[in-house]
Amino acid sequence: MNLLNRFIRHIYEQHLFAKNDRLLLAVSGGVDSVVLGQLCKQAGFDFGVAHCNFQLRGADSDADEQFVKTLAGNWNVPFYSIRFNTRAFAEENKLSTQEAARLLRYEWFGEIRKREVFDYVLTAHHVNDNIETVMMSFFRGTGINGLTGIKEKNGAVVRPLLFARRTELEQFLNEQSLSFVQDASNLKDDYTRNFIRNRLLPQVATIYPEVEQNLAGNIHRFQEVHALYQQSVAQYRKKLVTEKGNELHIPVLLLLKTVAPATVLFEIVKDYGFSAGQLPEVFALTGSDPGKFITSATHRVIRDRKHLIIAPLAVSAGSRILIEAPGDHFFEEGRLKILQQQKAGAIPEGANTAWIDARLLVFPLTLRPWKTGDYFYPLGMTKKKKVARFLIDLKLTTTQKEKVWVLEMGQKIVWVVGLRIDNRFRVTDRTGEIIEIQYQK
Amino acid sequence: MNLLNRFIRHIYEQHLFAKNDRLLLAVSGGVDSVVLGQLCKQAGFDFGVAHCNFQLRGADSDADEQFVKTLAGNWNVPFYSIRFNTRAFAEENKLSTQEAARLLRYEWFGEIRKREVFDYVLTAHHVNDNIETVMMSFFRGTGINGLTGIKEKNGAVVRPLLFARRTELEQFLNEQSLSFVQDASNLKDDYTRNFIRNRLLPQVATIYPEVEQNLAGNIHRFQEVHALYQQSVAQYRKKLVTEKGNELHIPVLLLLKTVAPATVLFEIVKDYGFSAGQLPEVFALTGSDPGKFITSATHRVIRDRKHLIIAPLAVSAGSRILIEAPGDHFFEEGRLKILQQQKAGAIPEGANTAWIDARLLVFPLTLRPWKTGDYFYPLGMTKKKKVARFLIDLKLTTTQKEKVWVLEMGQKIVWVVGLRIDNRFRVTDRTGEIIEIQYQK
Repeated sequence: MNLLNRFIRHIYEQHLFAKNDRLLLAVSGGVDSVVLGQLCKQAGFDFGVAHCNFQLRGADSDADEQFVKTLAGNWNVPFYSIRFNTRAFAEENKLSTQEAARLLRYEWFGEIRKREVFDYVLTAHHVNDNIETVMMSFFRGTGINGLTGIKEKNGAVVRPLLFARRTELEQFLNEQSLSFVQDASNLKDDYTRNFIRNRLLPQVATIYPEVEQNLAGNIHRFQEVHALYQQSVAQYRKKLVTEKGNELHIPVLLLLKTVAPATVLFEIVKDYGFSAGQLPEVFALTGSDPGKFITSATHRVIRDRKHLIIAPLAVSAGSRILIEAPGDHFFEEGRLKILQQQKAGAIPEGANTAWIDARLLVFPLTLRPWKTGDYFYPLGMTKKKKVARFLIDLKLTTTQKEKVWVLEMGQKIVWVVGLRIDNRFRVTDRTGEIIEIQYQK
Repeated sequence: MNLLNRFIRHIYEQHLFAKNDRLLLAVSGGVDSVVLGQLCKQAGFDFGVAHCNFQLRGADSDADEQFVKTLAGNWNVPFYSIRFNTRAFAEENKLSTQEAARLLRYEWFGEIRKREVFDYVLTAHHVNDNIETVMMSFFRGTGINGLTGIKEKNGAVVRPLLFARRTELEQFLNEQSLSFVQDASNLKDDYTRNFIRNRLLPQVATIYPEVEQNLAGNIHRFQEVHALYQQSVAQYRKKLVTEKGNELHIPVLLLLKTVAPATVLFEIVKDYGFSAGQLPEVFALTGSDPGKFITSATHRVIRDRKHLIIAPLAVSAGSRILIEAPGDHFFEEGRLKILQQQKAGAIPEGANTAWIDARLLVFPLTLRPWKTGDYFYPLGMTKKKKVARFLIDLKLTTTQKEKVWVLEMGQKIVWVVGLRIDNRFRVTDRTGEIIEIQYQK
């Protein structure tokens, strides 16, 4: 079967997106993204092209931009581009150039997607990228999750070429006589990745000629292993963890009786800011005297007489809490539980549960007390309203008003917590996945 | 803590063996095994030394043997040695020299252990051996099991140095001013292993300086992941697999509903001679027509209507016939003629013709010899009865019993051929069309 047919079949079999979805393609101008664009064109998909000029290679960068613009013109699709002062941004934020570029591009893609109403952002990662990523995790030290590779679908970002090998993409390009730019700053090509691709893997192939295929097979198997593993972990979590107010209690003896106590404990505490590196000291609490504790940025694991207790650190007034992913998030006035899931059933009526259209929400979010000057579009209204006015209309007392927090994305308020969501983020008939946020005082 | 204390503590903490157990040490004369001997001596363990002379390096091999004999004399412990014609054995058995030597040594260690009444055989594998082994599995393609490394205790073989690094062993040897042989044929040093140790890992270390430690950490984590994974697999096995005599039945729909159908299926079939390489075709049976099957050296996985059936070859070879439609069907004991027609006249009295209510019968059917565990509802009875009991009650001889076949639909026996139909399929007043089956010997 040719690449185009495999591409289309793969998308539908894996439910990556639907026929009429609008797609925003990240196109650097290199082999991979040119192939992705050509395949989308031939498949008859509705798409636009987004190109980042990171201005890292002077005139070459500008030439790449011009090349992709022409390409979009040939495909007769919308073209969006931006120029970043990548080096300055990296320095300001103490990031590597690669990290900076990565952050900038995904943020910008998210913005364009929303502004121009695309359903998904598509990137051109292929199976060799995936293999290299997994090898990096392996050598850096990892749990099973690090061996499952790049996610094919992660929120609004879809990578529909993960089934294909680099050589297949190159062959397709040759057959179609398409041109591409040689050193497109596609940012996958940092030093480590190049080392693995160009030096390590060819050497391994002298001993194991099928190494690429073997590693691709590993990824597939480890995804299934991971699913089975998660199921065991979930069962233990349910069996071991008791919520007491905003604390979690784990009975030490029962934990030690599980088949893998350290791993089970880590899977529980990692949602509360504890790193893999901290696991040895956290696990040592199972054998320590009561009163000992280990601290993360937001929480503390305390050894009690018969339990380990996970408790939030006291939060200082006026603080801002950065929420980088779904999960449990504690703040002064309680806890937010954030879940991503398929829309099912009716929108909850209680004001303590919010449903948000997942496509519109891009992490990180910020949780903070409301302040003068805040405004939002209360659910059901198309005009904006000052939060101050909104709270007055609700007839809250001064003390009550002091306890109101807002959840925001960028500059936009998503939810006046426990009171009203913003109209722009509401769930509609076209919503697929939702973000459910539960507020517990 | 010095190496000796860590060694002793590790043995007791991991319950590798008890203080008074008698230990047979595999000693090549290289660094690792000399350290193991010296540690056992200093720990005051009761041990003997076993050395294999593989005669692969002429006079050097003999010198090694003499060196180890002297060593055992210095330690004042029993010494056992043997000479193998390794190359000849390898050729005869079509093995690599390494495989041959490995087979010969472990077999001989086992013999000496039993003859001289030792509790355990000890080998000197350390954490670097373990890392190399895991890397080989990783590049060759593996499941989670291949990432858990060398077993510390495997039956009577114990590897008590897996906690230590090669450099630590070398340092210990220096401190104790012990000598050792340079190129001991310890057989761990085959080409692939040397390549990984001497070329690949040093290169990876230029990028990830902590790679050794990271990979050792991986092994430890993957052992726990493996334990959790196995727990999920065991639960699915219990839920999915039903034993029917010497067959295993797996309901396809339930299998496909699990979180990792291919992996769960493989974990079940791998005990019956199916290799990882066969998994794709075995798994394809979940989507194939009834009657298709895949064979291992000892078993067959057969696609039945709603089940996958794992059956031993001896029984099922040629003797499981799939009947997909009416017509003539031949088998070892004769022929079945199957006709679909309107009910007309009286039910035939002869036991060689069966009338079945056509509405109750859905093709395909299976024709096979009866087996222990089979039961059915003999015509006229509302209680089930074992076929074995039924045949005894008919006073059939052993030879006659061996010739009895059953016709079944899914899990239900329709007809004990030529003897009695099942009550559930009988023709009633409400029957319109019938299936008439004639058995001709």
